[in-house]
Amino acid sequence: MARIKLTIEYAGGAYCGWQRQNGQMSVQQKIEEAGKKIFGKDISITGAGRTDTGVSALGQVAHFDIETNIPPQNIANALNAHLPRDISIRKSEEVGEDFHARYDAKKKTYVYTIYNSRIRNAVFAPISTQIGVHLNEEEMNRAAAYLIGEHDFCSFMAAGSDVKTTVRTIYEAKVERKGEYVVFTVCGSGFLYNQVRIMAGTLIEIGKGKIRAEEMQSIILAKSRFAAAPTAKAEGLMLKEIEY
Amino acid sequence: MARIKLTIEYAGGAYCGWQRQNGQMSVQQKIEEAGKKIFGKDISITGAGRTDTGVSALGQVAHFDIETNIPPQNIANALNAHLPRDISIRKSEEVGEDFHARYDAKKKTYVYTIYNSRIRNAVFAPISTQIGVHLNEEEMNRAAAYLIGEHDFCSFMAAGSDVKTTVRTIYEAKVERKGEYVVFTVCGSGFLYNQVRIMAGTLIEIGKGKIRAEEMQSIILAKSRFAAAPTAKAEGLMLKEIEY
Repeated sequence: MARIKLTIEYAGGAYCGWQRQNGQMSVQQKIEEAGKKIFGKDISITGAGRTDTGVSALGQVAHFDIETNIPPQNIANALNAHLPRDISIRKSEEVGEDFHARYDAKKKTYVYTIYNSRIRNAVFAPISTQIGVHLNEEEMNRAAAYLIGEHDFCSFMAAGSDVKTTVRTIYEAKVERKGEYVVFTVCGSGFLYNQVRIMAGTLIEIGKGKIRAEEMQSIILAKSRFAAAPTAKAEGLMLKEIEY
Repeated sequence: MARIKLTIEYAGGAYCGWQRQNGQMSVQQKIEEAGKKIFGKDISITGAGRTDTGVSALGQVAHFDIETNIPPQNIANALNAHLPRDISIRKSEEVGEDFHARYDAKKKTYVYTIYNSRIRNAVFAPISTQIGVHLNEEEMNRAAAYLIGEHDFCSFMAAGSDVKTTVRTIYEAKVERKGEYVVFTVCGSGFLYNQVRIMAGTLIEIGKGKIRAEEMQSIILAKSRFAAAPTAKAEGLMLKEIEY
C-alpha cells in the first residue's frame, strides 16, 4: 500500500466545489471516478480543504492510498487521460504513510481577482468578480497589511462554522492593480470557512471608500462577523498553492 | 436609421466561431438573437472578420443598421442582458453611415498564447495551446522580426483561399516569455486566412530548434504554403484589438 500525494489544478465553474455532494458534480468525485478507471477499484481521496462552488485552484493537494504497479509519478498522466479538460493532475508522488493533505498543510496561498470595470468581461469572467465602482487599490493594500500576523479572525468566519480556534497566522497580504484587474494575494497558516472571501469583501468596501483602511484593525478586534463586510463572490477566488 | 458600431469580447470555446453557420452556434448568431429581443425585429451584423472555432476575442468589431429609440451607448448593456456570460458587448456607439467594420479596419492586433509545459493545464486551457517541448523564446522573437514590414505572405495563407492580393503589412511582431507561457503578439494591416496561426506554428518550430530563426526570411520569399510549418491550434489565438 502506497500513499500518493496529488497536486491538482481545476477551473471551478462547472463544479459544486471540491467536496463530494449528493446529486452534484464535484472535483473530488471526478478524480475518484478517474481513479476507479485506472486502478479498477474504488479510491477515496482526502483534500487539503474544501473549495466552494465556482472557486478555482492552481495547486489544490489531496492524498489517497493504493496498491498498484503504476509508478507513482505516472499516476498523474493516467488520471488526466480520464479527466475533463478543466481538471488537471499536475503532479503525483509517493509520500510517507503518515502524510496528510489537510493536517500537514503549513501554508496556503489564495489569490482573489477583482475585475474593476463597469463594462462586462467575458474571457476572464469565470475567474474574476466584477466591481463597477473604481477601487483605490493603494488603500486596499494599506488595509491588507493589518491582516498580517497572528490574530483571532472570528470577524472573518462564516456564521455557523464549528472550529476549535479562530486564531490563524497570516504571513503575507497584499493588493495590487494589474490594468483593469485588482488582485488580493494572501498567504496564511490556514483559513476559516469563507475567511478569504470575507477579507476580500471587506477590502472591496475599503477600495470603494466606504470603510477607512485603518478600520481593518478594529474589525479584527471586534471578533464579530457583523464587523466585517459581506462575503465576496466565489468566482474571484483561486487556491494558488499549499506548502507542506 | 443609425449605423451602430459594436466592440465585442468573447470566449471562443463554446462557439463554431464568429460567423453564422448552419446547425452550429456562432457568436454572430447569439448577438443577432439578442438584437431581435431588444429591437423586436431582425438585425444583420457585419463583423470585421471571421474568427475560427475556439478563437477568443477581446476586441472584435461589428456594425449594423437600426431604427430605434434606445440611445446608441445603451445598446451594449441592453444586448448584454440577453447574451451568455462568455459574450460581452464592451461598447456600442453611433458611427457614420459609411462606416464599415471590415473595409475600414486599419490595424488588427492578435495575441497567440502558448502554454509551454509538459504538465497539462486546466484554468487557462481554453485560451492557450500546450507545447511540451521547451521553447527558445529569444530565437522565436528574433524570427518574428523578419515578419515586420510589407511582404507577400502567401506562404502563411491556408490553401484554397481566394483573395485579390496576398501582400500585407505587419507593424509589430514579438515573442515574450511570461513564466510558463510564451506569447506571440502581432499587429498588421490585415491578415490572410489562418495567417496568424501559420506564423505561430512556424515560430513554434523555430522555438523547438527545428527551423533556424534566419530561415523565416526564406520562408516568406518562397511564397508557398509548403515552406511554412503546420497551422497552430485555434485555442491559443485571441483577437485583441482592431483600429480604425
